[in-house]
Amino acid sequence: MNILWVFAHPDTRSLNGALRDAALAELGKAGHRVEQSDLYRMNWNPVVRADDYGHDPTGRLHVATASSTALRRGSLAEDIVTEQAKLRRADAVVLQFPLWWFSMPAILKGWVDRVFVEGFGYGIRSEGGSTRRYGDGLMSGKRALVVTSMGGSEYTVSTRGINGSLEELLFPIHHGIFWYTGMSVLPPVLVASADRMTPKDYRAAVDGLADRLSTLFTDSPIAYRSQSGGNYDENFVLRSDLAPDEFGVRVHVG
Amino acid sequence: MNILWVFAHPDTRSLNGALRDAALAELGKAGHRVEQSDLYRMNWNPVVRADDYGHDPTGRLHVATASSTALRRGSLAEDIVTEQAKLRRADAVVLQFPLWWFSMPAILKGWVDRVFVEGFGYGIRSEGGSTRRYGDGLMSGKRALVVTSMGGSEYTVSTRGINGSLEELLFPIHHGIFWYTGMSVLPPVLVASADRMTPKDYRAAVDGLADRLSTLFTDSPIAYRSQSGGNYDENFVLRSDLAPDEFGVRVHVG
Repeated sequence: MNILWVFAHPDTRSLNGALRDAALAELGKAGHRVEQSDLYRMNWNPVVRADDYGHDPTGRLHVATASSTALRRGSLAEDIVTEQAKLRRADAVVLQFPLWWFSMPAILKGWVDRVFVEGFGYGIRSEGGSTRRYGDGLMSGKRALVVTSMGGSEYTVSTRGINGSLEELLFPIHHGIFWYTGMSVLPPVLVASADRMTPKDYRAAVDGLADRLSTLFTDSPIAYRSQSGGNYDENFVLRSDLAPDEFGVRVHVG
Repeated sequence: MNILWVFAHPDTRSLNGALRDAALAELGKAGHRVEQSDLYRMNWNPVVRADDYGHDPTGRLHVATASSTALRRGSLAEDIVTEQAKLRRADAVVLQFPLWWFSMPAILKGWVDRVFVEGFGYGIRSEGGSTRRYGDGLMSGKRALVVTSMGGSEYTVSTRGINGSLEELLFPIHHGIFWYTGMSVLPPVLVASADRMTPKDYRAAVDGLADRLSTLFTDSPIAYRSQSGGNYDENFVLRSDLAPDEFGVRVHVG
């Protein structure tokens, strides 16, 4: 299978770099074809600007419209086109990053901001006329996985941990990016207490990651609800008979 | 009072730009002193790199350690130092941005990544020896507010809306950045359906924002639990008698 591995750490000699190297070696041994986007090494530009779209800089910039127009006309910036081609080829997409401020480093957020333009990642009209998204985007059939590290312990991101439960912290990424564009989202791989690892901890992290990668195409994805399945009403609010009396991001898991 | 307004939209002629201009005029009329960080206009660099810290590029980069060392030694990059000075002076911080992929645009995420270095925004040891954070950071006493716009309707980010409830979507920012560093977090200002506004809608948005800004220093903040108040156990998990049988990010609101 084709795997796109997106890596967002400034130092390849870091724990993240070592885990990445071990993971890519494992995937290669398993016979997969891996493409990589090492964003720091690529000197990736994370900032959305008018010139991404060949847009007249003196005109008003409406990002969604300008980006979908550029996609249609073939006038998107070259670096965006290259990443989109990698995504099209991928059967699975892995985003690996240190958890900075409970989200992605800016260089990775800007990979998403710039590459997933309207009409590519989302925004295609279905036959019924509504926008294809949430399980029905252009990325349908692909799998997606977050591999992330943090200094704090696993307890701190447990269901009642002080940093907030990991699943809900990652909801904007899992549900709002991956599932929005149609990808099936696997439970994340977390490497916790990353600042104080013993060689044994490191070995366990490498083995744990290899283990998860060996089932990348067989693990059950998170059961997010699809927009097209009649789960939501005309205002895109969850039907009252689903997860009745519940609220918050968790209601979108079936 | 001193207000720092951080603005992250590529086009000042946008709805966001117009709202910003109206807001700054209101704040001025009310007698506040406003400093601005218009990140696109400043051509802000959002990418954390070794040279931010005067760090030897041939050595391994441990971001938290390198940044706190540079803060202590006064060797942080000049643009970071400037933003930190603005934050020190501020009584309230407003982040205004279009909601891109249910989070901040990369240029703004990179403002947080680079400016809130260890030892400035967080990571100071308290007398008891634990790290000062969550209500007890260096930013204590300051107020923080998100002003954001989105194309979708308010229904889509309501408590059971398909995009996920706004309060939980913003938890990584509200709790993980603002509250983490000690700021009091106000309920966000959302400008929804931003792509199809009538002049009347626009007027209502301007008035709504002005209204919220008039109570910036009197509104009740979100009642996040402090780390230091005995709310969490030794593993930083919420005590079982608080929000019993509940789980997820919401348990951190008292």
